[in-house]
Amino acid sequence: MSEETTDKKETARIEAFSDGVFAIAMTLLVLELKVPQLDEVASGTELWIALLSRWPSYLAYLVSFLFILIVWVNHHRLFVLIGRSDSRLLFLNGLILLVVTTIPFPTALLAEYLDRPAAWVACALYTATFVLLALSFSVLSSYISQNNHLLIRNLSPAQQAGITHNQRFSLISYSIAFALSFVNVYASFGLCILLAIYWAVIGYEQVSKADA
Amino acid sequence: MSEETTDKKETARIEAFSDGVFAIAMTLLVLELKVPQLDEVASGTELWIALLSRWPSYLAYLVSFLFILIVWVNHHRLFVLIGRSDSRLLFLNGLILLVVTTIPFPTALLAEYLDRPAAWVACALYTATFVLLALSFSVLSSYISQNNHLLIRNLSPAQQAGITHNQRFSLISYSIAFALSFVNVYASFGLCILLAIYWAVIGYEQVSKADA
Amino acid sequence: MSEETTDKKETARIEAFSDGVFAIAMTLLVLELKVPQLDEVASGTELWIALLSRWPSYLAYLVSFLFILIVWVNHHRLFVLIGRSDSRLLFLNGLILLVVTTIPFPTALLAEYLDRPAAWVACALYTATFVLLALSFSVLSSYISQNNHLLIRNLSPAQQAGITHNQRFSLISYSIAFALSFVNVYASFGLCILLAIYWAVIGYEQVSKADA
Amino acid sequence: MSEETTDKKETARIEAFSDGVFAIAMTLLVLELKVPQLDEVASGTELWIALLSRWPSYLAYLVSFLFILIVWVNHHRLFVLIGRSDSRLLFLNGLILLVVTTIPFPTALLAEYLDRPAAWVACALYTATFVLLALSFSVLSSYISQNNHLLIRNLSPAQQAGITHNQRFSLISYSIAFALSFVNVYASFGLCILLAIYWAVIGYEQVSKADA
Repeated sequence: MSEETTDKKETARIEAFSDGVFAIAMTLLVLELKVPQLDEVASGTELWIALLSRWPSYLAYLVSFLFILIVWVNHHRLFVLIGRSDSRLLFLNGLILLVVTTIPFPTALLAEYLDRPAAWVACALYTATFVLLALSFSVLSSYISQNNHLLIRNLSPAQQAGITHNQRFSLISYSIAFALSFVNVYASFGLCILLAIYWAVIGYEQVSKADA
Repeated sequence: MSEETTDKKETARIEAFSDGVFAIAMTLLVLELKVPQLDEVASGTELWIALLSRWPSYLAYLVSFLFILIVWVNHHRLFVLIGRSDSRLLFLNGLILLVVTTIPFPTALLAEYLDRPAAWVACALYTATFVLLALSFSVLSSYISQNNHLLIRNLSPAQQAGITHNQRFSLISYSIAFALSFVNVYASFGLCILLAIYWAVIGYEQVSKADA
Repeated sequence: MSEETTDKKETARIEAFSDGVFAIAMTLLVLELKVPQLDEVASGTELWIALLSRWPSYLAYLVSFLFILIVWVNHHRLFVLIGRSDSRLLFLNGLILLVVTTIPFPTALLAEYLDRPAAWVACALYTATFVLLALSFSVLSSYISQNNHLLIRNLSPAQQAGITHNQRFSLISYSIAFALSFVNVYASFGLCILLAIYWAVIGYEQVSKADA
Repeated sequence: MSEETTDKKETARIEAFSDGVFAIAMTLLVLELKVPQLDEVASGTELWIALLSRWPSYLAYLVSFLFILIVWVNHHRLFVLIGRSDSRLLFLNGLILLVVTTIPFPTALLAEYLDRPAAWVACALYTATFVLLALSFSVLSSYISQNNHLLIRNLSPAQQAGITHNQRFSLISYSIAFALSFVNVYASFGLCILLAIYWAVIGYEQVSKADA
């Protein structure tokens, strides 16, 4: 087996491991959706009301799910460029995984407190997680940009600009969401929803066009 | 590596990721089976009775497990046809994964309320999940049918008809189960059981014959 | 890609999916190990006692973990023989997965009741799970023995005899453990422990010798 | 398919299975981060205080996450040397997986008791897990060193010395952390944190240099 093949297998294994972590984090989110505990003779209407009153859970679940899905795509788009790994790359990728596995916790926190006075704390932590993730992606991207020998081939200026633009956009937009959480929780969480939709629908298209 | 190989690797990765989500969702179902908390001197008979009284949990567990297994097979049968991915395909596949990861929640809800007055609400949500899944599959299938360049080769009229037939059948039958939940919960859930058995035993055979 | 390659890829995917289910079921077992909730000023000695009093949890955890590990090995040994899949194989494999994903539940039940009067019920269900698993393996093995076209090459008489012997041994020994649970719980669970050790240490050696 | 290819596929499957277990154990850690249950009108400040008072949870989470990540890397570095498996290798690898899947339990224990009088018991069990893991790695390494036919090629004296050094270092350092837990919990846990950072940052670099 040539050295290049070994290197590629190495990064494939990092990707497969990361994918496993993403898939599990995504699926564990559902454990935060709690079945209402009503008394034995509760009517259907009472169950509906109990379920509907938990709307923050469902919303937080949806946004976090979409968010991890988007991270998975972005992670993959970054790793197709990488042909070799070294110990620092492994560690920086581990930082991304750390933030991703943590997501179910701020999600549960937001679900519990979104419609209560302490919401801004939950929302600040929720958006801070997104900022941290954007940061850890930026660090990984900078690292591979500065270490060309890890890349399959040098990035074209357009690719480089695309990556830089996307990450600056993420970092700024989630920082705004974080700042907003101290002003108005619904504006902050609303921005998270908009960003999730943007990335899922419009953002992907852009990237695809850039690929073509 | 030729472009075709890269494309195929791309869809293989989507499949592997989806498989991970299916396997985890399937296995998390068991966390909804709760050990009865009896006092220290409870007799064996009391434990039997406590366990047996939870039959809705076991039934809901079985049906949901079988259901995700069937979804896994169908997902796979669809993806063997696909040779390339684009951003919209990724997003539509994400929709399927979203519904699949949610399944443990309506399952737990049904397990809790099946033998209680509020059962119809739980059953409506349970069957609605199946309808949503059938819908998300239909959307994905339509999308790939209309975007031939994503397919490995054009679908034969028989393949196209088979897919259309299966999805129409799913959509209609689960919609009936959903409608029945407002009339008679046992009829609705009974239909879910029958459909799970049908797909596991008869449905697969049909598909296999069509393959041959 | 030749047809044979496609078939092999197909069974490889079933194996990868099953492996995922095994790995998750194995890892979920740890969620049944509960941290003792003592009051704020509890001494270290009190924590030791509280932890030690939960010995049935640890024992049940160990045996179930070892058991799933052994199932993983046996599943793999069976699948290296298989070169093609059909719908019934998929369904029979699904039965094995169903029993495996269920294991955390009887494990938690046994952990809760092993040192209490209702232990025999928990133990009967625990050993019944092992009997069911042995049965589902037997059914799958019979099926592939009778459908030679699914095999990579015909089984040698020695291989055939080895598989039959192992499965008869499993089925009989776990049935004895099940029967013993109605007589003496410690004898029954003790036999499970012995069997787990036998398979992990001696059983594998035998199979390896047969391979050589 | 040549015999060598089959052997390599065999060890690849053990690696993939182990990776799955590592990824799940890592991600399950988050389930131990509990959302504070405050009354409906709790202020943001109260939530902050409740969250901050749980700092042992976050610290234990971080250290255990980093620890499993390091184990994953080390496991991989060992397995790239291995070209064949036998039943004993499988069993020794199973021992490593057993300890890894157990990690969420001592982590939760430490998170619960770190700032309470019984902390030394929790810390002793936490560090004992690390000692056990170092031990199980040592056993696996010795086994493959003594069974050259399992290796892809004979270890160079430098590789052999590197492995021996790393494992002796792990075993001794975690044993010191274990011993310290009976003297001073913060010194013991502090050493665990230092070791995690050492392995993540300095340790990897060393190994990489040795590779070059």
